[in-house]
Amino acid sequence: MKELFGSPGRVSGLGLRVGQFSFAAASIGVMVSAREFFNSTAFCYLIASMGLQLLWSFGLACLDLHALRSKRNLQNPVLVSLFVVGDWVTSLLSLAAACASAGVAILYTNDLHYCKRPPFLPCSKFQISIALAFISWFLLAISSHVMFWLLANV
Amino acid sequence: MKELFGSPGRVSGLGLRVGQFSFAAASIGVMVSAREFFNSTAFCYLIASMGLQLLWSFGLACLDLHALRSKRNLQNPVLVSLFVVGDWVTSLLSLAAACASAGVAILYTNDLHYCKRPPFLPCSKFQISIALAFISWFLLAISSHVMFWLLANV
Repeated sequence: MKELFGSPGRVSGLGLRVGQFSFAAASIGVMVSAREFFNSTAFCYLIASMGLQLLWSFGLACLDLHALRSKRNLQNPVLVSLFVVGDWVTSLLSLAAACASAGVAILYTNDLHYCKRPPFLPCSKFQISIALAFISWFLLAISSHVMFWLLANV
Repeated sequence: MKELFGSPGRVSGLGLRVGQFSFAAASIGVMVSAREFFNSTAFCYLIASMGLQLLWSFGLACLDLHALRSKRNLQNPVLVSLFVVGDWVTSLLSLAAACASAGVAILYTNDLHYCKRPPFLPCSKFQISIALAFISWFLLAISSHVMFWLLANV
């Protein structure tokens, strides 16, 4: 197998995982601090999806750290297949959640004007949380593509 | 290059492309026929994105048909790279549009109850259009993965 930027068991891979779970945690934090987020199904789904991504990326970060410290090679076909499936499922769910929330946030801001009129929703917090979710998804998408490329080159 | 299900210049590839543009056209048709769709930015974006997918898939279907009739081989690295970039960009935009619209449709149906109370929006039409968009995206996602796999195996 080739050694690529972001492959499992490398410092770049560990960096990507740390970025993924940090941004996912920040996204959850900002969304939970926003008033009345629970009135929209999409925002609750974003929290659930970012929670899943947090757990997955944190788990893989621990695995990468263990592999780096014990100098073990994580690049065998069975492990990479597992990473590919997990990464793709998580990244699809995250993208779906981020896009659904973005659709609702734009509806609130531009179409229903709920930010400047009653019920005066905290749209800026929604937008920051969604932006953090998109960054987290983007980092996960890089990992997913690297894994898929590694698997195709087995 | 390997011969895979759905590769360019094969009957299965042509079938996928025909499915993609048919479902995209059906999604646009149902959405345009729904009253007050233009009040939501996400639904307008869905129409724009499905329009782009319609053009892209129709163009590639014509190319596949030409390759099948003249028995030419479309699987050279430059062409496949072009297909990969186009497929991935189109499929990301389609998924984002479908998810954003789904978020808004769920907000209308479950959270704001705009389907059973005034303004009595035609939620079932929105849902059918979004379901068709998801089917169209799913077919495009198959094509994208096949192309990426072909490119990785160059």
